[in-house]
Amino acid sequence: MRRSEHKQEEPDLGILSSRTLFGLQRELFAKMSELGHPQVKPRHGAVLAYLDEEGSRATDLAAQSGQHKQVIGTLVDELVELGYVERRPDPADRRAKLIVPTERGLDHMAKSDAVLAAMEAEHARAVGEEAYAEFKRLFKLVAARQTAPDRTDPP
Amino acid sequence: MRRSEHKQEEPDLGILSSRTLFGLQRELFAKMSELGHPQVKPRHGAVLAYLDEEGSRATDLAAQSGQHKQVIGTLVDELVELGYVERRPDPADRRAKLIVPTERGLDHMAKSDAVLAAMEAEHARAVGEEAYAEFKRLFKLVAARQTAPDRTDPP
Repeated sequence: MRRSEHKQEEPDLGILSSRTLFGLQRELFAKMSELGHPQVKPRHGAVLAYLDEEGSRATDLAAQSGQHKQVIGTLVDELVELGYVERRPDPADRRAKLIVPTERGLDHMAKSDAVLAAMEAEHARAVGEEAYAEFKRLFKLVAARQTAPDRTDPP
Repeated sequence: MRRSEHKQEEPDLGILSSRTLFGLQRELFAKMSELGHPQVKPRHGAVLAYLDEEGSRATDLAAQSGQHKQVIGTLVDELVELGYVERRPDPADRRAKLIVPTERGLDHMAKSDAVLAAMEAEHARAVGEEAYAEFKRLFKLVAARQTAPDRTDPP
């Protein structure tokens, strides 16, 4: 059997994760474009997926998304430009800044959380509710193992 | 509960896929660097993960990886430069080109397949062999649903 055929029949964890991630992003951002947010790109997910309504620190967004703080800074610059977030002084630490969603940012966050939940509900209906819950439970374990801090040195 | 806390406790499919993919790439490419392949980057996976020992067409690599043919062309240029693949005329169609791995490319493909299999074997031992097999079975179903061609218009 050709290597590519074998990988088609028995896809590895990297292939499955990348197909799912990029397929899901394509669908989510196409729907978000129809819902009034055509300018937000998948890369902005590193900020918008984790942002708190009350605002978040860049260091927390970097840790949650697994992206470098420098990357988060660039994405925040873009989202400020697009009118989705603002940088404000952190009331808890005057030297720090909070990244706070604007009305437009809050609208994106609420709608994209809802679209993603609907997409997952569809998967659950298709494969079976119990099976999907078990899939998510195991995926959480695997993802946690794969991102454990002692697993690899920082890149 | 803060949105970020909720997402930590009940991560959605996008979060789980992206953590797993990027964590896995970090570990795999760190190990491949130690194994004599420091110049290959995660982006090259779109070619090297699917490439056949006998050679593959760019259109097939694009379809298998979900990347645009133009992106595959750029990655192949880089891999030619690094000495991992060559472009050769396709014996089956004189107007077409095959992308064929060199000795160095074959070494990378064999070692990265082995490293990835060992990483997955470790996950399976940790969560239980049967549970991991069930996880992979369900992940295949979800990934196939999420990448079905009728799901979204081409980007």
